[in-house]
Amino acid sequence: MSTTKNVHPHEPILKPITEIAQSIGLGEDDLEHYGRYKAKVRLEAIRRFQRRPNANLILVSAMTPTPAGEGKTTVSIGLTQALAKLGKQTIAALREPSLGPVLGIKGGATGGGRSRVLPADEINLHFTNDFPAVESAHNLLSAILDNTVFHDNPLNIDPRKITWPRVVDMNDRSLRDIVIGLGGSTNGVPRESGFDIVPSSEIMAILCLSRSYQDLKEKIRKILVSFTYDNKPVLAGDLKVEGAVTALLKYALLPNLVQTSEGVPAIIHGGPFANIAQGTNSILSTDLALRLADYVVTEAGFGFDLGAEKYFDIVARYGEFNPKVVVLVATVRALKYHAGLAGDDLDTSNPRLAVLGMANLRKHYQNIAKFGVQCIIALNRFATDTD
Amino acid sequence: MSTTKNVHPHEPILKPITEIAQSIGLGEDDLEHYGRYKAKVRLEAIRRFQRRPNANLILVSAMTPTPAGEGKTTVSIGLTQALAKLGKQTIAALREPSLGPVLGIKGGATGGGRSRVLPADEINLHFTNDFPAVESAHNLLSAILDNTVFHDNPLNIDPRKITWPRVVDMNDRSLRDIVIGLGGSTNGVPRESGFDIVPSSEIMAILCLSRSYQDLKEKIRKILVSFTYDNKPVLAGDLKVEGAVTALLKYALLPNLVQTSEGVPAIIHGGPFANIAQGTNSILSTDLALRLADYVVTEAGFGFDLGAEKYFDIVARYGEFNPKVVVLVATVRALKYHAGLAGDDLDTSNPRLAVLGMANLRKHYQNIAKFGVQCIIALNRFATDTD
Amino acid sequence: MSTTKNVHPHEPILKPITEIAQSIGLGEDDLEHYGRYKAKVRLEAIRRFQRRPNANLILVSAMTPTPAGEGKTTVSIGLTQALAKLGKQTIAALREPSLGPVLGIKGGATGGGRSRVLPADEINLHFTNDFPAVESAHNLLSAILDNTVFHDNPLNIDPRKITWPRVVDMNDRSLRDIVIGLGGSTNGVPRESGFDIVPSSEIMAILCLSRSYQDLKEKIRKILVSFTYDNKPVLAGDLKVEGAVTALLKYALLPNLVQTSEGVPAIIHGGPFANIAQGTNSILSTDLALRLADYVVTEAGFGFDLGAEKYFDIVARYGEFNPKVVVLVATVRALKYHAGLAGDDLDTSNPRLAVLGMANLRKHYQNIAKFGVQCIIALNRFATDTD
Amino acid sequence: MSTTKNVHPHEPILKPITEIAQSIGLGEDDLEHYGRYKAKVRLEAIRRFQRRPNANLILVSAMTPTPAGEGKTTVSIGLTQALAKLGKQTIAALREPSLGPVLGIKGGATGGGRSRVLPADEINLHFTNDFPAVESAHNLLSAILDNTVFHDNPLNIDPRKITWPRVVDMNDRSLRDIVIGLGGSTNGVPRESGFDIVPSSEIMAILCLSRSYQDLKEKIRKILVSFTYDNKPVLAGDLKVEGAVTALLKYALLPNLVQTSEGVPAIIHGGPFANIAQGTNSILSTDLALRLADYVVTEAGFGFDLGAEKYFDIVARYGEFNPKVVVLVATVRALKYHAGLAGDDLDTSNPRLAVLGMANLRKHYQNIAKFGVQCIIALNRFATDTD
Repeated sequence: MSTTKNVHPHEPILKPITEIAQSIGLGEDDLEHYGRYKAKVRLEAIRRFQRRPNANLILVSAMTPTPAGEGKTTVSIGLTQALAKLGKQTIAALREPSLGPVLGIKGGATGGGRSRVLPADEINLHFTNDFPAVESAHNLLSAILDNTVFHDNPLNIDPRKITWPRVVDMNDRSLRDIVIGLGGSTNGVPRESGFDIVPSSEIMAILCLSRSYQDLKEKIRKILVSFTYDNKPVLAGDLKVEGAVTALLKYALLPNLVQTSEGVPAIIHGGPFANIAQGTNSILSTDLALRLADYVVTEAGFGFDLGAEKYFDIVARYGEFNPKVVVLVATVRALKYHAGLAGDDLDTSNPRLAVLGMANLRKHYQNIAKFGVQCIIALNRFATDTD
Repeated sequence: MSTTKNVHPHEPILKPITEIAQSIGLGEDDLEHYGRYKAKVRLEAIRRFQRRPNANLILVSAMTPTPAGEGKTTVSIGLTQALAKLGKQTIAALREPSLGPVLGIKGGATGGGRSRVLPADEINLHFTNDFPAVESAHNLLSAILDNTVFHDNPLNIDPRKITWPRVVDMNDRSLRDIVIGLGGSTNGVPRESGFDIVPSSEIMAILCLSRSYQDLKEKIRKILVSFTYDNKPVLAGDLKVEGAVTALLKYALLPNLVQTSEGVPAIIHGGPFANIAQGTNSILSTDLALRLADYVVTEAGFGFDLGAEKYFDIVARYGEFNPKVVVLVATVRALKYHAGLAGDDLDTSNPRLAVLGMANLRKHYQNIAKFGVQCIIALNRFATDTD
Repeated sequence: MSTTKNVHPHEPILKPITEIAQSIGLGEDDLEHYGRYKAKVRLEAIRRFQRRPNANLILVSAMTPTPAGEGKTTVSIGLTQALAKLGKQTIAALREPSLGPVLGIKGGATGGGRSRVLPADEINLHFTNDFPAVESAHNLLSAILDNTVFHDNPLNIDPRKITWPRVVDMNDRSLRDIVIGLGGSTNGVPRESGFDIVPSSEIMAILCLSRSYQDLKEKIRKILVSFTYDNKPVLAGDLKVEGAVTALLKYALLPNLVQTSEGVPAIIHGGPFANIAQGTNSILSTDLALRLADYVVTEAGFGFDLGAEKYFDIVARYGEFNPKVVVLVATVRALKYHAGLAGDDLDTSNPRLAVLGMANLRKHYQNIAKFGVQCIIALNRFATDTD
Repeated sequence: MSTTKNVHPHEPILKPITEIAQSIGLGEDDLEHYGRYKAKVRLEAIRRFQRRPNANLILVSAMTPTPAGEGKTTVSIGLTQALAKLGKQTIAALREPSLGPVLGIKGGATGGGRSRVLPADEINLHFTNDFPAVESAHNLLSAILDNTVFHDNPLNIDPRKITWPRVVDMNDRSLRDIVIGLGGSTNGVPRESGFDIVPSSEIMAILCLSRSYQDLKEKIRKILVSFTYDNKPVLAGDLKVEGAVTALLKYALLPNLVQTSEGVPAIIHGGPFANIAQGTNSILSTDLALRLADYVVTEAGFGFDLGAEKYFDIVARYGEFNPKVVVLVATVRALKYHAGLAGDDLDTSNPRLAVLGMANLRKHYQNIAKFGVQCIIALNRFATDTD
């Protein structure tokens, strides 16, 4: 193993991150370096710029998801690179992959083919340690919560009503449902609990909706963590823990700058899950991109009905974003899947079923219209597709 | 909160880490930056230099430890700075503090007063993410172990005989003794387990004794993780997990370069506990320091009898180190403590008891002599000490 | 405390159980004594008699139950005593109360006022130890099941799929949901389990549907206790445990003879819960009563819709019983309850609501008609009722 | 299966228990019958008789126990029958076997060959339900203890410091170490606990040292069950539970009368384990025997050093007993075992080793002498022994 980033045989030559930064107006003082090809952008830098008045935000979503994925990230990066080739100042503003799924089935979320964010292996493994920081911040709150119950329980917390789990950046099924606090009276108070994965942490969701440390701290303060014996809510703020938790997120709040396969800037930051949270990158990172580029391509997890609706209802409102257009990603495989095919049959040419599956696509199209946003359908063509 | 490092009122002005690196012959290509004041040194850089033939290794240890600490780290840094002032090319090679004790009682291990390693707050919180990486690598092994038991258990592992715990970089008493794998047949196999803290991870111990990725991988392969139903040992290598675990330690193996309060280079790397492991910084970091400086100050945890003996028996042999001198740190408080005083009385002047406590010091002195190394006693004087 | 049975101040003088037995044709050889006022009837005795050709079976049920109870048992005993006073050879064939509810809320099921089965305190506490025997038999199966998993698991049982709980004759909420098999590899295999109460044991249900030891043994053999790792069912018979389990039920299978407040014979035997099992006394005891008396009064738990339907669909078929008439017990309180009243208001006179509540009663009446059995409504009048 | 007691082919004809009772002066009013061959003796009966002034108490103990057992019970019964044949009014006063070991390895404790207490199968299985009663009483205390913690914990009990386990009359290894109170806030308070076997219940020990219900109740009141959060002791009496617990022991306190193979009266009552409690039958039953016979043979569990010393120090004092002689049981196998032989070799003739093993026997002999009691050694000869 070597620390060199370019491990793929035909890997493009990466530009130093300083060069990428310069191309969008960021200087050395705006950055916190993480090796040669990754950097965090300091909050001061963000404030130094105004949001560009006619910056165009493009939201990439997809038809109802299938097990294989449709390639939202790949399309987003491809679109970013296409716009850049057309001479437009463009930035991709995307989510961070979590280690959990990386070691599991899905295989990362750094795009594919020539539409990737780089260095992909590092983005997939720890990256700039945002996920470990969220894990640590989340679990500090858990530990302090259990500790206050252990130490005479001044808040009268009913340990059986603690709703705040622990999290781990790993697909570790054995930790989902556990009994903690065993081993005698010095080891805390026995109770049932469990570990979720980091993308499902409320800290992750909050981080991605925060505009400043003060904002983040205030949101942490309001987290519901338990109920008392007489069923009154207990907030993180009752534990006076918001300062320490925020301190652990010092760097995690800063957007990460990397580049695409073609050297276009990409800001990758935040990774809440779409099924339980908003499923999009941080508003701080999209906001930063809208200050530094004319075209910003972002994406919303899951199908439009879940992910993009959350985007419009939550993220766009918190971030004051107005997507100009929604790109709806479809694949021939997904069309066939939604018409009833499965498994290996998905690779067989079957134009009739593909047309049947259009019903799913059509419904998403109609939904998008309800938000008053223009919709473009992008068919992500695979090598195995026939004409 | 701001991302500025200098939060203490009279905090010295930090030099850019590039400047510190240059002072010991390291160029831009030798570094992996972590912000402005921290950098990892690439393995290639280490190999570029030979060990200096007359480099002097100074080992700082202490008399039997007391609850308050004796100040080994502070003395080590002070000694480093003194040697630098004398015009000697000097590097401090020290351990990383763990987040666990940081949030607990002891308050970090970055020295005190004007003998500190900086930026202290960052070194104390996540630093360059070595501890999260060790945690992640350790727990990946745990998860895969439970997962193989869950998936038809081809290795015939007896889950009740799994000896490999999980670890967390936090003082979380409720996780010490737990029951995992509950919640039905999709959540793994129920068994008793627990979380230790990261410094007690065998991965941490191994990391600090490894000279290369290959060496690290080989050591991981040999970790004993369980026994089978018929009491045969199961190694990490039986799970074919050493590659993935090593991958997660890619950056964690690289020594971290920072500076002391007076701008002297300090290499801080690795943090195994002295009570259960070797209790010293990585051999790679001491080795690097011995290639870049004439004087290298390192320390061994706990009292000489535990920590330093482990140093001579394990670390010095693996690292091929020959300390020229042992500095034995004592405090008046510790002398009084070992003569029987406790609590507030330790702050009261009591020369008679201090002399009595010399017995402890004397024994350590005699022990050092057995290793054939010269011993110097350093009395770490506190403001409250009388003459 | 004394061993004398008659503890109530106006307690009627009890006749020796031998005398009660003689009144229905049972001699000394037919009995297994349990003190002076309780006896079990031997199976040989049952077989010595034929079922009386024109024995009349009267089934007592009730409208939809309310928290306070409607008094089915009291009405059953009262009816038994009334028929006896009319000179009819009559036996009450009723359920045994469980210790669980006795120590909990409901207060026993031995009737009330002058319509009680005696000695009530003994019937309520252990009686002739049928419940402990069922508990022991049930838990022997549990222990052997866990033990076979522990000893190399030759049946390939998946411990997470064991469906057979343990039972205890106590209202012990802390045992409902537990993790067992902890404490190291000599203490079995860790898994989630729990204790139900004895009346919910499948052994209890089976015991009450069995006609002989052979029949009982056969039914025990067929109990489903778990699934294998490859989801095949595991039966008690696969554990070769039916013999030992049946042995522990040797006396529990024999009907218990006691007397009512007025010295009328009562056979009290078996106590499965109506909500999860058939909720009636054993078919062996009703069968015995039908051989020894012209009128047999029995009861079915819960409201007619649940308890009595189970009676007709399950118990009557197994036992070949043909109830001549169903007595449907109602109370003014229950009528008001089903019209919407609650708590203390139930004691207030409210004829309008009582009439409204008749709708519940009417529906039960119609349901009974569907079984082609005549229905009589018995209004269990309380002292607080107004005319 | 049948309810007939005489299942062994050459089983002696049992006399009705009434006849056995009459032979020692007990009438019908003194008994609570349990079937035809077992009866409990009422407390009033015990008080009706004085202790015979020259009643002779013979204590049977053994050399250091071996896995196979030495046959104390068999010798005790044999001795009882021999004395009866000599025309002496003799009663054996022995312990009850527990169901646990019965279903496990040792196979009951009702003697062997022609020296048995009968009906052996019934004595071994539930007998007169003393063990289920102790189990129930013990676990009622457990349930109320957990319940008071659950209901606002007015006694400030620290659930982690509860020392009162539950018990079960079964060898159920999976229940030794468990976590209870799981499943949400209606299921009690989560904590670690476990089940012991009934003979190890403190209730069993207490029952066997009690002379009356009042005495029993008082002893229950003083049981230590937990500590509070501030480490104050919590007694059963603090839970006001002694009345209910004593009520469940109503019949369990009464001695059980059966007969030996040769129709000699045997009183079998109580079964605390010798390793953790006094290991002898109840003082009430020995006392009863001393009122009804001239010779009473009793036994003390384990070797003399453990069991018999407890007898002299605890039981004899509580019961005011003065054994006239100690019979020390030895076997040739045990002599060889203590000289170092094991397994199958024990069946091989080896006079030299048997002589060597005498050292063990000699030491016990010397110990007995210290209590000032005469000692007789009984060699329990096996069919395989050579001369």
